[in-house]
Amino acid sequence: MATRRFSATDPELDELYGHLAARSVQPLWELSGLLTREPRVAGVPFRWAGRELRELGARAGDLVPVDRGGDRRVLACCNPGLGGAPYAVSTLWAAVQYLRGHEVAPAHRHTPAALRFIVEGEGVWTLVDGDPLHMGTGDLVLTPSWTFHEHHNPGDRPMIWMDVLDLPVVAALDAVFFEEGPSEQADTRTAPRSDSEGWFGGGPGLTPVGAPALPAHRSPLLAYRWADTDRALSALLDTAGTGSAALRYGDPVRGGDVMPTMRCEIARVRAGASTGTARQTGGRVLCVLHGTGEIAIGDQVFTVEPGDILAVPSWTPWAVHATEETDVFSTSDAPVLESLGLMRTETLGAPLPTAVLAGAQR
Amino acid sequence: MATRRFSATDPELDELYGHLAARSVQPLWELSGLLTREPRVAGVPFRWAGRELRELGARAGDLVPVDRGGDRRVLACCNPGLGGAPYAVSTLWAAVQYLRGHEVAPAHRHTPAALRFIVEGEGVWTLVDGDPLHMGTGDLVLTPSWTFHEHHNPGDRPMIWMDVLDLPVVAALDAVFFEEGPSEQADTRTAPRSDSEGWFGGGPGLTPVGAPALPAHRSPLLAYRWADTDRALSALLDTAGTGSAALRYGDPVRGGDVMPTMRCEIARVRAGASTGTARQTGGRVLCVLHGTGEIAIGDQVFTVEPGDILAVPSWTPWAVHATEETDVFSTSDAPVLESLGLMRTETLGAPLPTAVLAGAQR
Amino acid sequence: MATRRFSATDPELDELYGHLAARSVQPLWELSGLLTREPRVAGVPFRWAGRELRELGARAGDLVPVDRGGDRRVLACCNPGLGGAPYAVSTLWAAVQYLRGHEVAPAHRHTPAALRFIVEGEGVWTLVDGDPLHMGTGDLVLTPSWTFHEHHNPGDRPMIWMDVLDLPVVAALDAVFFEEGPSEQADTRTAPRSDSEGWFGGGPGLTPVGAPALPAHRSPLLAYRWADTDRALSALLDTAGTGSAALRYGDPVRGGDVMPTMRCEIARVRAGASTGTARQTGGRVLCVLHGTGEIAIGDQVFTVEPGDILAVPSWTPWAVHATEETDVFSTSDAPVLESLGLMRTETLGAPLPTAVLAGAQR
Amino acid sequence: MATRRFSATDPELDELYGHLAARSVQPLWELSGLLTREPRVAGVPFRWAGRELRELGARAGDLVPVDRGGDRRVLACCNPGLGGAPYAVSTLWAAVQYLRGHEVAPAHRHTPAALRFIVEGEGVWTLVDGDPLHMGTGDLVLTPSWTFHEHHNPGDRPMIWMDVLDLPVVAALDAVFFEEGPSEQADTRTAPRSDSEGWFGGGPGLTPVGAPALPAHRSPLLAYRWADTDRALSALLDTAGTGSAALRYGDPVRGGDVMPTMRCEIARVRAGASTGTARQTGGRVLCVLHGTGEIAIGDQVFTVEPGDILAVPSWTPWAVHATEETDVFSTSDAPVLESLGLMRTETLGAPLPTAVLAGAQR
Repeated sequence: MATRRFSATDPELDELYGHLAARSVQPLWELSGLLTREPRVAGVPFRWAGRELRELGARAGDLVPVDRGGDRRVLACCNPGLGGAPYAVSTLWAAVQYLRGHEVAPAHRHTPAALRFIVEGEGVWTLVDGDPLHMGTGDLVLTPSWTFHEHHNPGDRPMIWMDVLDLPVVAALDAVFFEEGPSEQADTRTAPRSDSEGWFGGGPGLTPVGAPALPAHRSPLLAYRWADTDRALSALLDTAGTGSAALRYGDPVRGGDVMPTMRCEIARVRAGASTGTARQTGGRVLCVLHGTGEIAIGDQVFTVEPGDILAVPSWTPWAVHATEETDVFSTSDAPVLESLGLMRTETLGAPLPTAVLAGAQR
Repeated sequence: MATRRFSATDPELDELYGHLAARSVQPLWELSGLLTREPRVAGVPFRWAGRELRELGARAGDLVPVDRGGDRRVLACCNPGLGGAPYAVSTLWAAVQYLRGHEVAPAHRHTPAALRFIVEGEGVWTLVDGDPLHMGTGDLVLTPSWTFHEHHNPGDRPMIWMDVLDLPVVAALDAVFFEEGPSEQADTRTAPRSDSEGWFGGGPGLTPVGAPALPAHRSPLLAYRWADTDRALSALLDTAGTGSAALRYGDPVRGGDVMPTMRCEIARVRAGASTGTARQTGGRVLCVLHGTGEIAIGDQVFTVEPGDILAVPSWTPWAVHATEETDVFSTSDAPVLESLGLMRTETLGAPLPTAVLAGAQR
Repeated sequence: MATRRFSATDPELDELYGHLAARSVQPLWELSGLLTREPRVAGVPFRWAGRELRELGARAGDLVPVDRGGDRRVLACCNPGLGGAPYAVSTLWAAVQYLRGHEVAPAHRHTPAALRFIVEGEGVWTLVDGDPLHMGTGDLVLTPSWTFHEHHNPGDRPMIWMDVLDLPVVAALDAVFFEEGPSEQADTRTAPRSDSEGWFGGGPGLTPVGAPALPAHRSPLLAYRWADTDRALSALLDTAGTGSAALRYGDPVRGGDVMPTMRCEIARVRAGASTGTARQTGGRVLCVLHGTGEIAIGDQVFTVEPGDILAVPSWTPWAVHATEETDVFSTSDAPVLESLGLMRTETLGAPLPTAVLAGAQR
Repeated sequence: MATRRFSATDPELDELYGHLAARSVQPLWELSGLLTREPRVAGVPFRWAGRELRELGARAGDLVPVDRGGDRRVLACCNPGLGGAPYAVSTLWAAVQYLRGHEVAPAHRHTPAALRFIVEGEGVWTLVDGDPLHMGTGDLVLTPSWTFHEHHNPGDRPMIWMDVLDLPVVAALDAVFFEEGPSEQADTRTAPRSDSEGWFGGGPGLTPVGAPALPAHRSPLLAYRWADTDRALSALLDTAGTGSAALRYGDPVRGGDVMPTMRCEIARVRAGASTGTARQTGGRVLCVLHGTGEIAIGDQVFTVEPGDILAVPSWTPWAVHATEETDVFSTSDAPVLESLGLMRTETLGAPLPTAVLAGAQR
């Protein structure tokens, strides 16, 4: 963690250092790398190819029963810069989960919060504290901190989706709790619409009178449907009159982010257009929903297609250039940085230079 | 305001009273009615029939040019209990506004906030600070405090709608300001969708990233469309599984009411069902959008139909019984009472007694 | 309230007006004075002389038993502009209360909130929900909305103080509730320090861990002691390096005003110095604690001394010029205006012109 | 970080694992220890003896010039459970800083926030953005995130104090920024009272009108004086009528904690009394200011005296038993846990068992 800056040559100093070590004390002046002019980020820009993740998921589906360990068939994206930690960036877990037809992933709950984003397919139901939420392409489904959640696939076709968790943050705070569901028996109910949506998914600014008490620290709405998101993105782009625009998913009753540890956003970039280049403190995970193009992160450019998952480490500039109209879902730890007064943002403005795009990795 | 409780007979006391009066001082012990066990409410339960309001509006349309005074052709509902004040209840102004084809009501702004609710018809555009908002059946359109607003009717058909203002509250606080629009020239622009809706009307919990700065003290969304409201009411009723349910209109970005002085809600009551009976401090104005039934306010029962406007004075129990499925829009001063810590609510629970309904006024 | 703007001469119009009147409807175009360019304020600048109030209080003490009506011996300051309403300004009640030695004013509670400010004397105890608060010179004591409060004077010497209430606001909202205390028997306990102060009066920024639950809508601290206020004013003036400075009394735990309807402030003006001239929407009541000087309100200048109570109507400029160092306590309805988005302030900057001071009323 | 749970024996599985590793993906079912029933805390209960820290500080004073590395002569308390990381608990840095007479520690700033607590001595001045804050026994002095701060000791006598920083949290979020002061030249100003205290240190609930704009994300008051804290603790104990009581240091204007990452509290325990035993998620650092007694943390009991610093790891029960009246200052990361919805608390109620106390370590 902290390395000794220079070896002392003074015997008196060595004696002092001996006393210090014996008392579990370290001299600041021998430590380096604690306070750096800018964040010293271990994570690196990275892209996990959606095509490969789907193949690996399917192969795992053939070989590994869903109950083999952790009740989940999950493949975690591990940032090569993080020394083997199974995290996509230093503050976020990202993974794909694969469920075959007629499989169930039984209920459990944990303090780390999770979200599910579906790039392709449908037909799996996620129950959150017993409320059945259908999962379909482009939907965002939340399983907030300490809510019981389980998945079941009543159909014949397998399904894969992305999981993002705030596990690294909760672990760093020594606050991980886990509990198995009340029953071994999976709850395989389905419903055309979840109660959560019936109560809180009404429409922009419409909230129920006399609804159940709102949960603390998270949105009462647990599913955000692609039909709404798609319509909203189109209207927003038309109104903004720009080449790209982005929406934030939030609490429809009280405002603010969907959860206190993760911000969810989705950007649409018109064919041929680019987003500005910007960076901020804290990490971000991208997932391409539709379209193709290039995504630049730091000094790397990735040619992307649907299903690709990308890591944007802290304080690293990034931008999207769309070849075809592109929709990019994004999860960041911004609510954490903001609530602690640690958010810094910098807009480098310029769209993605073509020169840079030339070198895009395929 | 305060009446003398008893005539003093003591000459020394009379002398004192003389000195007090000469110095603009009054003895508390000679005042009564200041502190009452329950609110002593001057306003009375009342109903203005929609059919009559439409006829009166049309007649005013024939006789009174729109620019004759106040730039508006408005008929104010005056609660008979309020001694001639042009208010529906002690804290709310309610009126109908009538605009003939090709008429314009030029721009002005005032600190009292207004809302427009449309019971029937369409085709008029309200511009709020230059943003054109179409007005159609079942829509709620806001013209918040100190925003320039104007109306124009590009079509041939006249249109009527309900205005509700917080004028009595703003006047009681000696805070009324008024200003004519920047130009005599009416702005007759139209648009398929307002910028307000393009930015902030996306969908439940969806808000724009990098939108224009949010206005203080009010929702950035200025129009709530019936299509959304109708869909949300249906979903809510299904989910709640009750005979009636209600939605609140609010700020889609930050939560809370549409404006700091007025709460807007809409209730749907299934045919044959009733709402519970309840009362709260502060006044309320109801407007029937769809359906027929009875509305009980205090000891009176009104048989209602679309377009009827009703006054619910402070601390007066009220309930709705639907003969056909009924939608009732409602505006109250609840945000004022709540922010000042003066809100009291009481649920009398029981649905509307048939006995009471028998005596409904027609 | 609203006067007819011009007499119509058109018989058809007269017929329409007849129909309107019959249906409790008024035509906006016949109303004037509803929307004015600036607030049309009925209240006038006024000063109640402390010397006279003390004399009148003492005389009332001789003639009127404390239990004669309302259980309080209170003289209300009535603004001559308000048509006989017993209010100092349109939104605030101000009065002096006089309690002779060994008298008690039994417990009651009401939704209008009250505060007590003591200009001179000490020795009376106010109990708020049973917590005994001593009253001494320069102290501010709160009796918030719906808290039981009673006063008793265990000593021989009479005492007088100022009461300010938000009664006009609560009455305008039809939200006045009143209740007698649980017992006829006065509670005459005393204590060197109230529990409220023991829990919440610790020091700047110091709040108790595991204290009783905080009350909603008001400060948990009920007494603000002159020793603290005096010390804070001195430090503030030194630091600001100006001729005058002001403190706001607030909730020591959550911040914000002492109560949701009344803001309490105290200004110290050094001998020979003046405050700037400013105005804001909403009313204000001033009470001179120490010193002599002139207070200008609108176009009037009052020469003031300790105990004087003054009315500053809405949107009326005011300023203080100190002959000797002067402390002026002030209560306004600013929290109401601010929470409703109706606060406007204007700084006219210039100190009080000597010319104006020349004409000061004695 | 995460260890492989069992070695697969299936060649197909091995092949899959090979593919996964090649693509920086890890299978969840091979990871263990990610989701534990309760927090798996690496940090251990620990005590750094004040006497030893003072001796080591003095010795460092003899041998190490203050400018040798990091411009600070700081000895960091390193929890033996944290694998060499220089942190007292996983989320807090704690250290002692030693400054000899006439030494200066030049200005710098960093995003990690710091606080200084003085157990003994006085005479050093800390300047925060140029505002000189005197440091004396029992005072708490804040140097919030990104504020320039420097220390100088104008006197002859050395001084030692405790530093606590949120460095581990800021580092975990990849948000560490650091900047040298604008000038090499130390600012050696002193003042009887800081501007921060002049503006915001008035008294309980007293805040300035027209003060400088409040800083975001932290208290505008930068020094909390022992005289105030001591008086407040006495009053609180009297009022609570218990054997121990605690105060929280906070923002005197807006309420809430002094900084968004660290909560500061101080408890007073009467001679012979004990606090209850409780635990919560997140780490805590204790510092004994006055008195002697035992502090139990988990299954260890430490006999403590002034100057001792102790580590309370996450979810570890702790309690204080006072032999003489004891004051214990405490810093925790509670605001972080609370803002992220991760705070759990558990009260084990029972005072410290004498049996346990018997085994106290000396």
